[in-house]
Amino acid sequence: MHFKTVALIGRYQDSGLDAPLRKLADTLHAAGCKVLIEADTATNTGITEHTVADYQAIGQQADLAVVMGGDGTMLGAARQLAVTQVPLIGINHGRLGFITDIPLHSANDALASVLKGNFEIEERMLLESRVVRDDEIMFSGVAVNDVVLNRAGRGGMIDVRVELDGVFMYSQRADGLIVATPTGSTAYSLSANGPIVHPQLNAILLVPVAPQTLSNRPIVLPDTGTLSLTINALGRVESGASVHFDMQTWSDCQPGDRIDVRRAQHTVRFVHPTGYSIFSTLRRKLYWNHMPQPSDEVE
Amino acid sequence: MHFKTVALIGRYQDSGLDAPLRKLADTLHAAGCKVLIEADTATNTGITEHTVADYQAIGQQADLAVVMGGDGTMLGAARQLAVTQVPLIGINHGRLGFITDIPLHSANDALASVLKGNFEIEERMLLESRVVRDDEIMFSGVAVNDVVLNRAGRGGMIDVRVELDGVFMYSQRADGLIVATPTGSTAYSLSANGPIVHPQLNAILLVPVAPQTLSNRPIVLPDTGTLSLTINALGRVESGASVHFDMQTWSDCQPGDRIDVRRAQHTVRFVHPTGYSIFSTLRRKLYWNHMPQPSDEVE
Amino acid sequence: MHFKTVALIGRYQDSGLDAPLRKLADTLHAAGCKVLIEADTATNTGITEHTVADYQAIGQQADLAVVMGGDGTMLGAARQLAVTQVPLIGINHGRLGFITDIPLHSANDALASVLKGNFEIEERMLLESRVVRDDEIMFSGVAVNDVVLNRAGRGGMIDVRVELDGVFMYSQRADGLIVATPTGSTAYSLSANGPIVHPQLNAILLVPVAPQTLSNRPIVLPDTGTLSLTINALGRVESGASVHFDMQTWSDCQPGDRIDVRRAQHTVRFVHPTGYSIFSTLRRKLYWNHMPQPSDEVE
Amino acid sequence: MHFKTVALIGRYQDSGLDAPLRKLADTLHAAGCKVLIEADTATNTGITEHTVADYQAIGQQADLAVVMGGDGTMLGAARQLAVTQVPLIGINHGRLGFITDIPLHSANDALASVLKGNFEIEERMLLESRVVRDDEIMFSGVAVNDVVLNRAGRGGMIDVRVELDGVFMYSQRADGLIVATPTGSTAYSLSANGPIVHPQLNAILLVPVAPQTLSNRPIVLPDTGTLSLTINALGRVESGASVHFDMQTWSDCQPGDRIDVRRAQHTVRFVHPTGYSIFSTLRRKLYWNHMPQPSDEVE
Repeated sequence: MHFKTVALIGRYQDSGLDAPLRKLADTLHAAGCKVLIEADTATNTGITEHTVADYQAIGQQADLAVVMGGDGTMLGAARQLAVTQVPLIGINHGRLGFITDIPLHSANDALASVLKGNFEIEERMLLESRVVRDDEIMFSGVAVNDVVLNRAGRGGMIDVRVELDGVFMYSQRADGLIVATPTGSTAYSLSANGPIVHPQLNAILLVPVAPQTLSNRPIVLPDTGTLSLTINALGRVESGASVHFDMQTWSDCQPGDRIDVRRAQHTVRFVHPTGYSIFSTLRRKLYWNHMPQPSDEVE
Repeated sequence: MHFKTVALIGRYQDSGLDAPLRKLADTLHAAGCKVLIEADTATNTGITEHTVADYQAIGQQADLAVVMGGDGTMLGAARQLAVTQVPLIGINHGRLGFITDIPLHSANDALASVLKGNFEIEERMLLESRVVRDDEIMFSGVAVNDVVLNRAGRGGMIDVRVELDGVFMYSQRADGLIVATPTGSTAYSLSANGPIVHPQLNAILLVPVAPQTLSNRPIVLPDTGTLSLTINALGRVESGASVHFDMQTWSDCQPGDRIDVRRAQHTVRFVHPTGYSIFSTLRRKLYWNHMPQPSDEVE
Repeated sequence: MHFKTVALIGRYQDSGLDAPLRKLADTLHAAGCKVLIEADTATNTGITEHTVADYQAIGQQADLAVVMGGDGTMLGAARQLAVTQVPLIGINHGRLGFITDIPLHSANDALASVLKGNFEIEERMLLESRVVRDDEIMFSGVAVNDVVLNRAGRGGMIDVRVELDGVFMYSQRADGLIVATPTGSTAYSLSANGPIVHPQLNAILLVPVAPQTLSNRPIVLPDTGTLSLTINALGRVESGASVHFDMQTWSDCQPGDRIDVRRAQHTVRFVHPTGYSIFSTLRRKLYWNHMPQPSDEVE
Repeated sequence: MHFKTVALIGRYQDSGLDAPLRKLADTLHAAGCKVLIEADTATNTGITEHTVADYQAIGQQADLAVVMGGDGTMLGAARQLAVTQVPLIGINHGRLGFITDIPLHSANDALASVLKGNFEIEERMLLESRVVRDDEIMFSGVAVNDVVLNRAGRGGMIDVRVELDGVFMYSQRADGLIVATPTGSTAYSLSANGPIVHPQLNAILLVPVAPQTLSNRPIVLPDTGTLSLTINALGRVESGASVHFDMQTWSDCQPGDRIDVRRAQHTVRFVHPTGYSIFSTLRRKLYWNHMPQPSDEVE
């Protein structure tokens, strides 16, 4: 059996996870797995009949982590487990996610089938990034989706100089700049008019948000270089800028700060039921094949 | 009663219109209306128990025209009846349309209610356009949605000079240029990244298709001027260019030809059930409020 | 003579305005005008040989206000003088502006010609807006370019419900929403993929910034209604949202706050040299007709 | 010496190539190179003092091909020489090109320097494509920039089904679909809102032109698969569709035809002077760093 010890991780402060998580734990137990409940998840749901484990223990013991929630929950768990190479599988609880691709109603069947060996493993790249000021590292982290540099919202645009491996690309005034992985190409980057990048492409995506130069366009780059974003100037005296690694924020950017971003050495591993297609998710999420009907009003 | 004589117009060569059109005719007859069946529609459906009338007779006698089909059917009927000011109401038979806003399944109830006075009349502007070569008019027509100048597809881009009332706007190489009414802003123009223009705005929309200059943008103009598109050059020797007034095509454009477009004197009048909102149609058609569900796959 | 008393207004804290402003004052004086120097401008430049006047005095006495600086300076002066209907003319000192359309090097000739009567007056609409919380007005103001509601940058998107005259349009998660005048359509809105709206069109433009729903599009609306933006939710606990009326900011938005925006009763009046064309400005600013040359590198 | 035999290729029917090409030939001769003049170029320019050679001879004998003209000339020469692996260097004669990156005025100096060894060689991928009908290959070819399937311009949109290695991606109604190399990402694809793809990325770009589904987006795919575009339907009876491999056109597409596109085995090799940066070309061509000046009008 591929997955003898399976960890369950639920969305933080989701009050409806109790019953489906417990049922999932039972399914796993019945299939002969040892079940670990992530510590915060156990506290949140009150599930105490299985072993409670923190992320460190999960990293050491688990062969698989099942994440129930939305894409945000999956991102958090993926960052925690990236170094350990424990693969993750996502059960969607809420709106359809791009990376939590198993619907809740078929979670038990899907997992049972996965335990029998009907799965594929997909590696997704991560970004590692650090904020540098006067040769000192002020902040660092990893991101599954994207590293975003943006203005703090009070004032004008930020003015940023972009280099790839020290070669000048452009300077741009904009609301922000997004550096995204292929995984992140369907997240915030997509709202900012970025292209979709296939998860198996070794690429880093650079997308400006509301750039002042109208001919600026998203650029897809090889994943072998280091992108450096240097803050030339902030919009106005009272403005600020923030850097976000997925949802982790550092808000104290100053002119002269440089944000270096490159591919991380580690990858995160996603487990999908056999037959998974990223295009199926895209069709459902983006309505590519849905013909509107006259009675289709929702609100 | 507002609508004593009501004409029925069905989509050309739609084999499923027979039963619903006959039922609609009966509803109208039962409500005390005189019913006219448009001549081609009568031939197509075999409905002969009501008076058959061509567009000229409909224009003279009808107080209302009910159009069953898609947006294309509605556009055709609207162009035919624009001069006569006979108002139109659209019953959707097929995919959700922007201007055939009554779903088929509620057509009889909606019409019965409209006949009792529960309706609003909305005027929509038309464009009139003509192709001029050496001061000679080569082709002319009206459009409810748009006048489109585009390349004939074989070769490179067309190069067009645009003027508003004789004042130079820009020259542009592109696949094509769309001049649209507010009604047309939700048709082809929307695919070419044009904005949505509210139907009650007195505006003409100019949208380039795949323009070579990346900073070119759609422009919304007052409806009081005349736009002139002059073909500077065609992409290559074997290329051509076409002008389309809605779906009517003239394919023999040459360098030097000028296409003049301005607001037509006549308008077309649409009847909507009371409470109609363009935004409701937009939400349904564009999924603005639809949250995707994991089980939402369609194909 | 049309303009007997002319006020001069310079960009705040622009150290290079001294000489050109003094020369302009001399030109005006030589042409027989009474010259007023705006109080802050006088302090900033040390020009004391003409009458110093605050905005209130300018509003009462001036027949024309000449603004030297960038678009931001012009926006500020326009808001100050809107109620008084004193017309403004803009001299560009810095980057090419959309509304300061006279280049500095031809300022004296252009002004001399304007004083002789070679000018056109153009009215531009303003927006008035207020933030309402529990029926209380928290903040209000006017804008020449735009009213922008956006997230404070720390966290996720804002979720906003949009209504026009009480009719529901859509709810949207986005970085922000821009409500712009035609004048503002070439400012921030243009970076967010909004269309260009001709200044003489009576329209209000609604443009989402990085909307989560990919089918959301900019909408151009009649200027007769009131747009209401109600904050459904903010992205995360630590987030906030701000409203900006041009460059004036109110940063304390909470869920439930409603921002009402409508056309202001007053307009601002811009003076242009005879022959002014908005399209000429667009061509220059957006490079519509500029063919790149191999030696054209700038940096 | 790296390049002992150098071929000169000029733009077809460019009347101004005579003098600069002759000068270039002299420069090469003076540097000790054997010079070949491509046959059509010799006929066109009347340069007969060097050896005249057709493409086959150039492929066998030349160590370098110098192409003078625009990007179109370079594309044509690249397709002709791809199999032979003769590297090409582009001299721009006309508008700034993306791949003819040496300006004419510095051509002699640049070439002299290249002959001394100051150059880099860059490999660019090609696409190979074929049109298949009932298992029969109707047309095939290679493309440096892109394979484009589009409507013939007379009528409505084309309806195309897209698969990657037999896995369904989406069906889409659109004006056309562009399959582009990284090199082609700065050509037609860029006008259709495609992203810029770095030339060293092993990727294929799929970009719809004016897609009916507003949430459709450009997709960047690995270069290891085969894209298949199958024509579901053409817009209207009188319509047609065409396939273009760069500028080579096949116009007889029918519903049911399938266009297979994949990376070609051969690459084309471009020679650049040392220090070449794609970003420099992008900045110049797209005005990323150009600040407009008030006197900058061009027309």
